[in-house]
Amino acid sequence: MAPLHRSLAAELRRRIREGELAVGDSLPSEAQLCQEFGASRGPVRQALSALRDEGLIGGGQGKRAVVLDAVPAQPFETFLSFTRRAELTGHVPGQRLHEIALRHPEATVAAALGVEPESLVVQLVRLRLLDGRPAMLERMNYTESVGRPLLEADLNAGSIYALLTARGVDLHSARHTFDAVAADALDAKLLEVPEGTPLLRERRRTADSAGTALEWSEDRYRPDVATVTVTNTRSSRPTVNRL
Amino acid sequence: MAPLHRSLAAELRRRIREGELAVGDSLPSEAQLCQEFGASRGPVRQALSALRDEGLIGGGQGKRAVVLDAVPAQPFETFLSFTRRAELTGHVPGQRLHEIALRHPEATVAAALGVEPESLVVQLVRLRLLDGRPAMLERMNYTESVGRPLLEADLNAGSIYALLTARGVDLHSARHTFDAVAADALDAKLLEVPEGTPLLRERRRTADSAGTALEWSEDRYRPDVATVTVTNTRSSRPTVNRL
Repeated sequence: MAPLHRSLAAELRRRIREGELAVGDSLPSEAQLCQEFGASRGPVRQALSALRDEGLIGGGQGKRAVVLDAVPAQPFETFLSFTRRAELTGHVPGQRLHEIALRHPEATVAAALGVEPESLVVQLVRLRLLDGRPAMLERMNYTESVGRPLLEADLNAGSIYALLTARGVDLHSARHTFDAVAADALDAKLLEVPEGTPLLRERRRTADSAGTALEWSEDRYRPDVATVTVTNTRSSRPTVNRL
Repeated sequence: MAPLHRSLAAELRRRIREGELAVGDSLPSEAQLCQEFGASRGPVRQALSALRDEGLIGGGQGKRAVVLDAVPAQPFETFLSFTRRAELTGHVPGQRLHEIALRHPEATVAAALGVEPESLVVQLVRLRLLDGRPAMLERMNYTESVGRPLLEADLNAGSIYALLTARGVDLHSARHTFDAVAADALDAKLLEVPEGTPLLRERRRTADSAGTALEWSEDRYRPDVATVTVTNTRSSRPTVNRL
């Protein structure tokens, strides 16, 4: 189970994101939060401090905390890493490797990665878990030089994003395309849903600073665990957050 | 049918968005585009000029056009208005009113709009079409003062967004939450898909400059007509585009 201050912060983030706490609203007092969540002052203060660091709330130091007027955009790392998002929302991330292979890519994968069909790519299929329950199925494709180290890595240990970054891979930009698809047989089996269940699909192309494709992946989320939220106004650029 | 230069521009936008034409790539020459699309110079030049105006390509004036390095974010109006997006992508938008009513809101709608359950709201159910084919079903809820004019308007005529804006309604900010849902009986009937078909769902809260909710809506898109694309890098804020 996640530590209490993390669950608390996650719940407050949810209320702000879903508008239960609107811009300009005061948060409940520390005493009220302690009572509502059956928590002591320590975790409540830690949670509020985390939200303050993220720019979600202002005030404090004796004054009541207030919801600030812009939901900040998730940083690049958070948007890219399932592990990081799970941690930030107070959940315990997990993973179960289904398959990793070095093989010739299908034509669509070769085109997306910009490699020749006779080249080799590293392909993974991995189930992601939240608090031990199936949440998302990822099908990842890496160019050979980027993906080779994954063949020897412990892929049940955590974030591939963190692993590649630690090895100096220049993950610089990503394009994420979201739509809805029906669960196929493999999705159904691993995500434990009936075949045909609506899933939120993300297709992602990750590139280095020069714009060269490193990864082309397709993630499929159980509909009860994932949303993408876009906030925009006439006068400012949109912010994007995902859960 | 949409004019040729619009379809041409839409096809080039698609190639750029989906990475077939990557950042830094040269576009085909005008002569090549004419040949590929069986078009004369006029429509090809009009299409290229539109893409240039949108900041998608640079060059021209004798030099070959090049894909620029940032896909620009859609402006607020385009992100909000189905009609506007359809026009920009070379499709003919349409609509068929299913129902409009003035009634007491359900509890969830009242909460989202921040009104009392015993107040009145204007509720619409309207089918949206692209080139005459069902594309999206919208269920819209407006506070009484904002929605009343809609009761007398010709809702088969076009954009509600444009209609409200023309009447001086201050549509200033919006929060859009995207996920996947299964088509219910009404979705199935109007969108002409089997019940249970995965649909991309958008829930939207639109507010005025003071942050007061004016609209709370739920749109459900056939999966073959809608995607949301987020492009982000380590060093810049994300851009968001939808089709």
